[in-house]
Amino acid sequence: KYLKTLWLYQLSKAGKLCVPAMNVNDSVTKQKFDNLYCCRESILDGLKRTTDVMFGGKQVVVCGYGEVGKGCCAALKAMGSIVYVTEIDPICALQACMDGFRLVKLNEVIRQVDIVITCTGNKNVVVREYLDRMKNGCIVCNMGHSNTEIDVASLRTPELTWERVRSQVDHVIWPDGKRVVLLAEGRLLNLSCSTVPTFVLSITATTQALALIELYNAPEGRYKQDVYLLPKKMDEYVASLHLPTFDAHLTELTDEQAKYLGLNKNGPFKPNYYR
Amino acid sequence: KYLKTLWLYQLSKAGKLCVPAMNVNDSVTKQKFDNLYCCRESILDGLKRTTDVMFGGKQVVVCGYGEVGKGCCAALKAMGSIVYVTEIDPICALQACMDGFRLVKLNEVIRQVDIVITCTGNKNVVVREYLDRMKNGCIVCNMGHSNTEIDVASLRTPELTWERVRSQVDHVIWPDGKRVVLLAEGRLLNLSCSTVPTFVLSITATTQALALIELYNAPEGRYKQDVYLLPKKMDEYVASLHLPTFDAHLTELTDEQAKYLGLNKNGPFKPNYYR
Amino acid sequence: KYLKTLWLYQLSKAGKLCVPAMNVNDSVTKQKFDNLYCCRESILDGLKRTTDVMFGGKQVVVCGYGEVGKGCCAALKAMGSIVYVTEIDPICALQACMDGFRLVKLNEVIRQVDIVITCTGNKNVVVREYLDRMKNGCIVCNMGHSNTEIDVASLRTPELTWERVRSQVDHVIWPDGKRVVLLAEGRLLNLSCSTVPTFVLSITATTQALALIELYNAPEGRYKQDVYLLPKKMDEYVASLHLPTFDAHLTELTDEQAKYLGLNKNGPFKPNYYR
Amino acid sequence: KYLKTLWLYQLSKAGKLCVPAMNVNDSVTKQKFDNLYCCRESILDGLKRTTDVMFGGKQVVVCGYGEVGKGCCAALKAMGSIVYVTEIDPICALQACMDGFRLVKLNEVIRQVDIVITCTGNKNVVVREYLDRMKNGCIVCNMGHSNTEIDVASLRTPELTWERVRSQVDHVIWPDGKRVVLLAEGRLLNLSCSTVPTFVLSITATTQALALIELYNAPEGRYKQDVYLLPKKMDEYVASLHLPTFDAHLTELTDEQAKYLGLNKNGPFKPNYYR
Repeated sequence: KYLKTLWLYQLSKAGKLCVPAMNVNDSVTKQKFDNLYCCRESILDGLKRTTDVMFGGKQVVVCGYGEVGKGCCAALKAMGSIVYVTEIDPICALQACMDGFRLVKLNEVIRQVDIVITCTGNKNVVVREYLDRMKNGCIVCNMGHSNTEIDVASLRTPELTWERVRSQVDHVIWPDGKRVVLLAEGRLLNLSCSTVPTFVLSITATTQALALIELYNAPEGRYKQDVYLLPKKMDEYVASLHLPTFDAHLTELTDEQAKYLGLNKNGPFKPNYYR
Repeated sequence: KYLKTLWLYQLSKAGKLCVPAMNVNDSVTKQKFDNLYCCRESILDGLKRTTDVMFGGKQVVVCGYGEVGKGCCAALKAMGSIVYVTEIDPICALQACMDGFRLVKLNEVIRQVDIVITCTGNKNVVVREYLDRMKNGCIVCNMGHSNTEIDVASLRTPELTWERVRSQVDHVIWPDGKRVVLLAEGRLLNLSCSTVPTFVLSITATTQALALIELYNAPEGRYKQDVYLLPKKMDEYVASLHLPTFDAHLTELTDEQAKYLGLNKNGPFKPNYYR
Repeated sequence: KYLKTLWLYQLSKAGKLCVPAMNVNDSVTKQKFDNLYCCRESILDGLKRTTDVMFGGKQVVVCGYGEVGKGCCAALKAMGSIVYVTEIDPICALQACMDGFRLVKLNEVIRQVDIVITCTGNKNVVVREYLDRMKNGCIVCNMGHSNTEIDVASLRTPELTWERVRSQVDHVIWPDGKRVVLLAEGRLLNLSCSTVPTFVLSITATTQALALIELYNAPEGRYKQDVYLLPKKMDEYVASLHLPTFDAHLTELTDEQAKYLGLNKNGPFKPNYYR
Repeated sequence: KYLKTLWLYQLSKAGKLCVPAMNVNDSVTKQKFDNLYCCRESILDGLKRTTDVMFGGKQVVVCGYGEVGKGCCAALKAMGSIVYVTEIDPICALQACMDGFRLVKLNEVIRQVDIVITCTGNKNVVVREYLDRMKNGCIVCNMGHSNTEIDVASLRTPELTWERVRSQVDHVIWPDGKRVVLLAEGRLLNLSCSTVPTFVLSITATTQALALIELYNAPEGRYKQDVYLLPKKMDEYVASLHLPTFDAHLTELTDEQAKYLGLNKNGPFKPNYYR
């Protein structure tokens, strides 16, 4: 989804976008729920259902510290894993440090880790060279983007034997007997081997529906052939619709407070760029 | 700082801004370090130095779940406090729910909490009515914005006795003997009763210096009399300068990966609105 | 297992134990792994596989704060649930407080919680009266002891309809349409709906095997018709056998240090009662 | 205190104890509060007050994973530090692994860590050899036992310069300019540079008072010249006296439940060895 959004912006930049588009992926509620909060749970679920691995004490490397990576890291740290992070973006890298994860290059830890998780949105993050150096029993899976992050094609060579041990679980066996446990053939673990809670679907569907309604109802000229972020107020509306589930009670601004902050009492409460 | 930024935007909107301005407060590194990461530590430090309170088992209400509130809540939860949150913004409210905090209105918990912390950037969040209903020994402090959040003036009435028990610590005593422990007379706890780590100062100072250099060096016309966010690339530069402190090793994109993502290998790595 | 151990002690007290018995359940490694560390993972696994519930923001009550309860509470807190605890033992109760959980009686929260988990080792902890007052969709499950903790028999009455919605998942439907989601018909969730990691089995099996070897090899007279705790040194031996899995490096005492502490360099390192 | 208790047992073993003694140090409430819960807070407090260090991203090694070590590790992990643990006891070592800490020997990490904390109860844990290899600015402190854990005497040599930079803070300066930050001259950080919450004092004082009352009131012959653990029921009584502080509500056993468990409704609720 991150990449699809990038493509939208590239299309727009190239003048090839023929309708207005709403970048719902980067609305706050969508981002946080579909990525951070959902993956925090589905990484554990996906790994358990496929491998029954115990998380406590395991060494794990998570490639990418965006919202998905943050969710995976938080969950595994809480379960007692020792988590390493790789990043290309210094801002996300610094966040990983402050959250208590050692920032490494993949080759520094690839021999010692028990689990490798990709969440970069990139391609060829885990290539054959790394797969060759993993230890016996290492689990490899992808939480990021389609099926490009792990170079699975490089494992389709004559000297390696594939053994399907269970639905969505393959053992790839090296000549010396070493086994790497590949989940979902490198496709998305959270879609293949876990479930998406209805609550998350509701957030996403509501966001998309409101975006379509906005594009449809907008007075002519409000949106051109470009990519737009969901207006903050709608993002806030999606959130407010889901608060009663948690019996959550929102505080209202007094007139005096709204005036002091220069805000409308009904929102939007934050500038558009706020995340 | 949040408010000062709001004012900048209001000045700009009113056409009264006479020079270009850089909103450094909302650069990612500045936000996260000065607010989230720094306050996560200084809330504990400020409370300990002034009151020696034990955090374990204490009931705490945190007003506001922006970056400062998120930092305070995370720290206190980790120390074994039971934390309640108040919010006006449904997006932040939903985040509080997902992070495991009950979202309440202040009046629902004001009688039972041991500590009240304001981080809203707003005024008159804790008013006399609430102070009257707090229990004996309740600690009240402000982590948010100047000295407006707690209505301290309302406590300067004849029936209440003030007793200075230590530097920055006042007991306000009700006629029935109830004491409320007011810290720093309602001014900022983290500035008055805690210290700011040099690392955080370094992040902030670097960000400000780079913003000034950018404004000074920019070719004529790049910046008008408006408010600008720090260019993403500079934000990333600030972060990268601070990574060696943690012996953190950044991964570099391969040419193939950079092409796939449509990114320059040296950044910026994220769209400008990314947080 | 807790109860079976209690029974052993009762048999012994009544003079009815006809062979020496080893209380392996209370050896430290067995306790921590089979109960605390294993349940910390299996509570999440069991709930996800049966109900796909999202943990974030959910209100949960955990009955009992022994090792199993501690594991369940830690896991759910980390996943963003709001957790309440009930206890009969003031020591465990105080620990729950210090770990950041509100200690309540079941009737205080039964109307508001989304999930009820029993881990008491007791009987009739969740009785019909409480089941009647749960809200629609409330999930009820047992992590504690056999099938006695939830009074399932009380739900077999004509006015309630049972609907099997999936293996191990029943909806019990009240006349007004309210549904309670009962897992594993009140039997142990971790055994019925989750898996036990091989690592935990290895700990348990090693402990049991060593206990049997000790009883078999012991010189006559070392053990009478009584219940014994596993000798500390064996407990330590079980642990040391499992350290290489984590590439964990133990420090050795110097002669000088061993002498200072009055310990043998090869253990046991703690008094027998140490936990 | 751990050591003093060891000595009591050694005196008793040697037949040199001339009065009955109560080992209050190992009562559950005393252990958990004075060690685990108190140190979880005072390690942060002591480090902040003396050094203003930012915890986020720092690499820390904690020597010893008993109750004190567990508290220190939990607090620093929660604040975003990367924590390594050293241990001699395989049981505690395995617990460290399951809690997500890498178990190392001190020499594996001594060059890279920012903070060294001793909590072993042992002597000469941090010796000159290690101090020589620490990096510039490394902070060294003792949370364990009197002043023996860090070999401070070895730093009183002509080639090293001592500089007192603040109360309780010394810079020890190597000929090449490297500085090691020694806190409290190696004495207990929590006693020297932090405060003990009144709540913890209350737990400890109550436990000691009850132990004395029990020894004084006990019928002749109940206690011989030996070391005894505080009777479970008194331990529970201490805990129950402190529950109202947290507005904590204990559940009572029904007659039927008490009978099922073979327990008295008023306790003790656990066998004596239960921790």
